[in-house]
Amino acid sequence: MVSKNVQDLMEKMTIQEKIGQLIQLSADFFQGDNVAITGPLKEAHLGEAALYSAGSVLGISGAQTVRKVQKNYLKHSRLGIPLLFMADVVHGYKTIFPIPLALGASFDPQVMKTASATAAKESAAGGVHVTFAPMVDLVRDPRWGRVMESTGEDPYLNSVMAKAAVTGFQGTLPLDQNHIAACVKHFAAYGAPEAGREYNTVDISEWRFREQYLPAYAAAIEAQALLVMTSFNTLFGVPATVNQHLMRDILRDELQFHGVLISDWDAIGEIIHHGVAGDLQHAADLALKAGVDIDMMSFAYAKYLAKAASLDPQIEQLINESAQRILILKEQLGLFTDPYRGLSTERETEATLTTENLDAAQAAAEQSMVLLKNSHHTLPLNTATAISLVGPVADTGDILGSWSWQGDPDQTETIADALAKQFSNFTVMPGTQYHHVQFSKLNDAVNASRQQETIVAVLGLPASESGEATSMTDITLPAEQLTLLRELAQLNKPLVTIVITGRPLDLTEVDALSDAVLLAWFPGSRGGAAIANVLSGRVDPSGRLPMTFPRNIGQVPIYYNAYNTGRPISGTPADDENKYLSKYIDAANSPLYPFGFGLSYGDFTITDWTLSQHNVTPDQPLTIQATIHNSADHAGTTVVQLYTHQQVGETVQPVKQLQAFKKVSLGADQTQTITLTVPYDQLSTIHSDLHRSTDQGDYTVMLGFDSTCTASQPFTVAHQ
Amino acid sequence: MVSKNVQDLMEKMTIQEKIGQLIQLSADFFQGDNVAITGPLKEAHLGEAALYSAGSVLGISGAQTVRKVQKNYLKHSRLGIPLLFMADVVHGYKTIFPIPLALGASFDPQVMKTASATAAKESAAGGVHVTFAPMVDLVRDPRWGRVMESTGEDPYLNSVMAKAAVTGFQGTLPLDQNHIAACVKHFAAYGAPEAGREYNTVDISEWRFREQYLPAYAAAIEAQALLVMTSFNTLFGVPATVNQHLMRDILRDELQFHGVLISDWDAIGEIIHHGVAGDLQHAADLALKAGVDIDMMSFAYAKYLAKAASLDPQIEQLINESAQRILILKEQLGLFTDPYRGLSTERETEATLTTENLDAAQAAAEQSMVLLKNSHHTLPLNTATAISLVGPVADTGDILGSWSWQGDPDQTETIADALAKQFSNFTVMPGTQYHHVQFSKLNDAVNASRQQETIVAVLGLPASESGEATSMTDITLPAEQLTLLRELAQLNKPLVTIVITGRPLDLTEVDALSDAVLLAWFPGSRGGAAIANVLSGRVDPSGRLPMTFPRNIGQVPIYYNAYNTGRPISGTPADDENKYLSKYIDAANSPLYPFGFGLSYGDFTITDWTLSQHNVTPDQPLTIQATIHNSADHAGTTVVQLYTHQQVGETVQPVKQLQAFKKVSLGADQTQTITLTVPYDQLSTIHSDLHRSTDQGDYTVMLGFDSTCTASQPFTVAHQ
Repeated sequence: MVSKNVQDLMEKMTIQEKIGQLIQLSADFFQGDNVAITGPLKEAHLGEAALYSAGSVLGISGAQTVRKVQKNYLKHSRLGIPLLFMADVVHGYKTIFPIPLALGASFDPQVMKTASATAAKESAAGGVHVTFAPMVDLVRDPRWGRVMESTGEDPYLNSVMAKAAVTGFQGTLPLDQNHIAACVKHFAAYGAPEAGREYNTVDISEWRFREQYLPAYAAAIEAQALLVMTSFNTLFGVPATVNQHLMRDILRDELQFHGVLISDWDAIGEIIHHGVAGDLQHAADLALKAGVDIDMMSFAYAKYLAKAASLDPQIEQLINESAQRILILKEQLGLFTDPYRGLSTERETEATLTTENLDAAQAAAEQSMVLLKNSHHTLPLNTATAISLVGPVADTGDILGSWSWQGDPDQTETIADALAKQFSNFTVMPGTQYHHVQFSKLNDAVNASRQQETIVAVLGLPASESGEATSMTDITLPAEQLTLLRELAQLNKPLVTIVITGRPLDLTEVDALSDAVLLAWFPGSRGGAAIANVLSGRVDPSGRLPMTFPRNIGQVPIYYNAYNTGRPISGTPADDENKYLSKYIDAANSPLYPFGFGLSYGDFTITDWTLSQHNVTPDQPLTIQATIHNSADHAGTTVVQLYTHQQVGETVQPVKQLQAFKKVSLGADQTQTITLTVPYDQLSTIHSDLHRSTDQGDYTVMLGFDSTCTASQPFTVAHQ
Repeated sequence: MVSKNVQDLMEKMTIQEKIGQLIQLSADFFQGDNVAITGPLKEAHLGEAALYSAGSVLGISGAQTVRKVQKNYLKHSRLGIPLLFMADVVHGYKTIFPIPLALGASFDPQVMKTASATAAKESAAGGVHVTFAPMVDLVRDPRWGRVMESTGEDPYLNSVMAKAAVTGFQGTLPLDQNHIAACVKHFAAYGAPEAGREYNTVDISEWRFREQYLPAYAAAIEAQALLVMTSFNTLFGVPATVNQHLMRDILRDELQFHGVLISDWDAIGEIIHHGVAGDLQHAADLALKAGVDIDMMSFAYAKYLAKAASLDPQIEQLINESAQRILILKEQLGLFTDPYRGLSTERETEATLTTENLDAAQAAAEQSMVLLKNSHHTLPLNTATAISLVGPVADTGDILGSWSWQGDPDQTETIADALAKQFSNFTVMPGTQYHHVQFSKLNDAVNASRQQETIVAVLGLPASESGEATSMTDITLPAEQLTLLRELAQLNKPLVTIVITGRPLDLTEVDALSDAVLLAWFPGSRGGAAIANVLSGRVDPSGRLPMTFPRNIGQVPIYYNAYNTGRPISGTPADDENKYLSKYIDAANSPLYPFGFGLSYGDFTITDWTLSQHNVTPDQPLTIQATIHNSADHAGTTVVQLYTHQQVGETVQPVKQLQAFKKVSLGADQTQTITLTVPYDQLSTIHSDLHRSTDQGDYTVMLGFDSTCTASQPFTVAHQ
């Protein structure tokens, strides 16, 4: 399957040129007119030759810049092998969509696909070839800042979204110039850092890893993601980047991944800190043997592979394999045909920040917002209502979220500005900054609120406190903001709280103080307009939680698909007869808001649901027909969720497992019948021998609007 | 190795009689004059035959009662096989020692051995044959109430203490009548329940399990513990009680455990709740195949094994093996010679609550208390000082702790009463209950304190909130007690806080408000006297923390022997250049009080330390000589702690690992030279193939007074 062109190149390349393909440098190596390079190269103890042999670069974009760098690079490339441009294009390029966790909340893979396709189109026009996305790490710990980059806690939802993202970025293979290659990350289990502390140890059993963490990566690879990135963490005691069992046995052999495996930033060098390599040469050796094709910024490959190859034919063979994979990727990107992939400043201008793109971002924001509380139909608001808009996020463009380096908060419409387009009578008075308050300003905000009919408080965190390297031990809102909210609650006016966050927070007090709570995440470029539409009722907030929101940090990790315990509790925790059951003595087991939860302006019920047959076989999937009714006097959108539970297994089973979902929009008093299907294979689980198969026996299927649904029907599974 | 007697019995016994040996019933089956039994038997759907075939009972004690039950039982036993009496004798029987976590804090295995030997002697005189102790589960989560029953977070300390406990309970085998059989629990890894919630799922990699959790169980088994108890939790996806890999491969084959394996209470029945057995018959089958000899209170064996044996010769064979193990245990206990083990009420009276026993309990309490803060030498107090004694634990006997069913809080000297024997001038005014406060009483306590020179606040939790089934999400002291402490701190008088707790708490605010903080745990029968001695300076509080105390719950799990990460932080977290390192943005990585920490009234330094040789081999252990100096003007006790770190391993290594320790008492200005030794095998680690071996290469040894010690020297390991 290797093309003649790649074969020819492989034959012509020196070992040094092959090693070059395995090296990725950062943008600062390619700055200046002449792609001047002295500073970083010197710091890295590399010569100019290393630069022009390096196969890829990260973080450079812009049609003009990329053209210039590529042109200059090709001048120095003996065989004319183009440079590969990679970048973090996560939830948008110039047009910023809601953060991935919010896209997960959309419960609509089409939203994710559109977001990724839009990001691909804009960034491809900006010269990007590969994005370091999607991040499909399963996450359960709100302390970890990077949960914002995942689609949440559920293996199935993550798998669906992983596939949608890869398809969105890449389109249908072969890649065209409007698409870019996807790099699935982080392989593997980066989402489970101990104590929620960034870059900390991960330790889970291989059984659980395969059961819950592996599926989303597998789905992305099955969707033909062209690259995979290693994760910083250890797994089973060995750093992922040099973990042969993980990379060889599982990724290459089992998942049949044939694409390019790239390290995370300096991850090969960090094997020394992990204490698994004695020096950089050792680290290079371990990484190559584990199958890492590209060394991002540790310089281990640049410095040590040539010598190692001269001593060990196995190393040379591995270098050949890696170089060939990278050349194949360049070929898939069409770089041998057009190293510029049709780049032009005209195309760049035409493709970016278009109305279509911005509208799509707004629709995604509207679809991802989660209405957490809405007592007495506080929302939607009449646009003539006199509103007091307060809170540190009320009038700032800092609503794009992390991983939006090409987005510009200063050019982003604020929530206040967006509201002004629909609401005729409101005042804006932040009252407090994120973490600092002047009491005179707080008083001003409270006094202003006293004069208005309804209070809308926009609280939350800045983007800088969400994302990589932002782990927190305290997930309540900052004290200053809670103080403001308490003061406002004293006024006894309808109080709507909008929460801007990249992670689940402890909203127990916010919930108690507010009449309505709208979770807006970091909603992106058109977040303000989306919020205005939700507040005015032009659109229904149709997001559902992709992560459980705990009552307090002491419940963490808390997630819906927990395993059966031997002492489950169903009655009242305080009752004596329930003393020796699995519970806390100072808090409920249940979260504040469960996975899958979200309210609608509609009022939905499942009036009827039936199974096509009560026996599932390989040829006969689990098929459910359900009739959904919206009894409200206005339209709304809900997410119908199907969960299953296997009654008896060789290993413990989750109490319930999401297996299908469907977003349904219905007008006032409308009814619709939907069909949900779960294939036989999807009912499979990992057994204690670590193999996956579907067990015969008794199962339960549950249908509802969130993960606490209890309406159930039995079914059985047979082998045929 | 099977005796003629046991062989003969095995030949004579019917299958039903053999199955009987495998059944354990609780005390309530044997109540009343005629050992009347109708109620519980009826409830369990068992006949009277089941009762008299049952091989063991739990929870019955008292010389007279045991004699009566045994005598009646033997009347009904066709072959005269005596009943086995088991009970939870954990940190004392009538004489209550400090809780096991406190005994761990003693850092003195002799303290643990004495506590266990005393408990054995008293309970043996009360008719107990087997204790469900020691609990050697490694614990890292203060939310779990049962941490009080463990000796802490460290594999080495736990191993040393496990061995001491087994030796204390059992003495030197064969057992004499002053000793009882030990049952090591809970196999395995019960100490790692997810989210600290009692009975919750445990999931760790087998690598980590073997590395950190298994050693203490292995040490107890190597010390010849005669029984092992299964744990409630799952491990590697399968409930421990039916986990063949755990029980057959690891426990029986690798650890060479040949004794009796007993289920925890109803643990076999709970396999149904775990969803791994469809019914009780299935559960019985799985448990027997995993090697569980005794079914505690699920009745699975009683109801289903006979039928299963008649259908399957393998089942019959397994029943034979289990029955024989139990008969061997009875023989080891001498029950075939004297089914009463010399029981008499005279002996019982003579053996229990003796001055010797109580003095030992007091010494253990003194050795286990940890002085966490002592600004400006606030402690010790002059006995003439006018003291205001406040707090809910100041004048209560509820200082015994959980798992002390034969202890009597009402007969326990309170801290106030004990202080009265040494301090001439003090008032007692609790100020608040544990969780409820009357503000008039709080004011009384504050006003009383205003009149005195020094305030001693005894704060904490009742025994009922520590131990099994007491998981908590909030580990700060109750708000009422913190309110009291804040009020007291306003008085600007020396403020000493004594903390009564069975688990690490978030003491951040307590530390900030207090001049001195003394951690007294649940100190047991003579806890009051021990506290009085520490306050007056008659003894030095020489406990050191066996578990890390976090700054807040958001740091959990936090423990000293964490693995290397790829991005360790040493500089200032807030510095930009340290942004992408493993840390939190709102709290330090370090705990409030580290493992191994504790202050002394002495002032210790290590003036000099040398390695006997810098190369360690199988024949040449790591040997360190250190000179310790107490520069204070009074005596004191410290714990010298030796940690090692392997520089490079095939798997990640802990940043440091405790390998040896020694408690050293020195008079004023005294100096002593001590030797610490670490055998070659103890430097071994688990490799990715799950095998344990010692690696050649470079290591570091660190010496100091707690786990933050940094003084280090290099050494190397060679195979010979």
